[in-house]
Amino acid sequence: MSKVLDFYFDLASPYAYLASTQVDDVCARNGATARWRPFLLGGVFKATGNEMPARIPAKAAYMQRDLQAWSAFYGVPFAFPAHFPINSVKPMRVCLAAEEQGKLRELAEAMYRAYWAEGNPIDDPAVIAEVAADVGLDGEKLLARIEDQDIKNRLKENTEEAVRLGAFGAPFFHLDGQIFWGNDRLPLIEHTLKC
Amino acid sequence: MSKVLDFYFDLASPYAYLASTQVDDVCARNGATARWRPFLLGGVFKATGNEMPARIPAKAAYMQRDLQAWSAFYGVPFAFPAHFPINSVKPMRVCLAAEEQGKLRELAEAMYRAYWAEGNPIDDPAVIAEVAADVGLDGEKLLARIEDQDIKNRLKENTEEAVRLGAFGAPFFHLDGQIFWGNDRLPLIEHTLKC
Repeated sequence: MSKVLDFYFDLASPYAYLASTQVDDVCARNGATARWRPFLLGGVFKATGNEMPARIPAKAAYMQRDLQAWSAFYGVPFAFPAHFPINSVKPMRVCLAAEEQGKLRELAEAMYRAYWAEGNPIDDPAVIAEVAADVGLDGEKLLARIEDQDIKNRLKENTEEAVRLGAFGAPFFHLDGQIFWGNDRLPLIEHTLKC
Repeated sequence: MSKVLDFYFDLASPYAYLASTQVDDVCARNGATARWRPFLLGGVFKATGNEMPARIPAKAAYMQRDLQAWSAFYGVPFAFPAHFPINSVKPMRVCLAAEEQGKLRELAEAMYRAYWAEGNPIDDPAVIAEVAADVGLDGEKLLARIEDQDIKNRLKENTEEAVRLGAFGAPFFHLDGQIFWGNDRLPLIEHTLKC
């Protein structure tokens, strides 16, 4: 039976973006599958008393260099967006609406690129509609769908589930009872998949 | 010319312990040398407004599992000590006194093992003397030496230097103008050494 790695992500998190560029490969080369799970980092922070890592000035300065170093290491594009942070509630609900149409990963990847590589404000409905069109989805329909209560509830449920499992930040991973936090834990995840 | 990686460590930090088990190998296999630099994590926290990562309960719970996962990944012994945290001022000064006798690394490694693998309270002078004897040093002499102002100053200077470079936690690394924080950045350091 193939192992399933739950990958909880928020489009607002640069480290979740970095992990999103690797997680499928890490799984594929170990006979596992990544299940992308949209959640809300703001909700996780609120539930756990955690906060943005950039609170400490020296840490914020380091983070900029660290993100560049990881993107060079992975060979993926990265540029810290001028428009930061974003309110990711709408974009994350849109991910769930795309999931219903079998295009969660495609949309999430396109949104990550649009924001973390190209600097487009993905909390703007016009940008969302454009990115959706790029992956063959009807942006107007998606934006209408996210006003429905069941989509709102689903995002809340994913977030609560992650918090129950032990999440306090993003990206967050769950694999067969083990939890991992951070892009930098992918080597540990790979090691666990191999065992 | 061989590259030199500055490795700032505090014996009180479990992630610095984990890094200490790998840093020499990472350097050796890339034709570089690690220069072990004792510093005081408490001083770094004070200077930068940072604090122990265990402030958030979910993070503290995760840290226990994370430390176990890294020790299994590296294949090194680890057990969270009952006596935690320690005041590392004396142990770190002792490292500097050992450095004068050409035994900094030997003593630091023995102290790390004594605390993070065997649970011995290495802020206790009797334990310090025992560990020192194990690596062929005179514990009484070391403990006398750390009362001298120049040793006290040297620890303060190392700490201030790290803070100037951008440190806000441990372990902290400096390589030719680039800085890295955390045991989990060793893959990035290795990548940088290869470039």
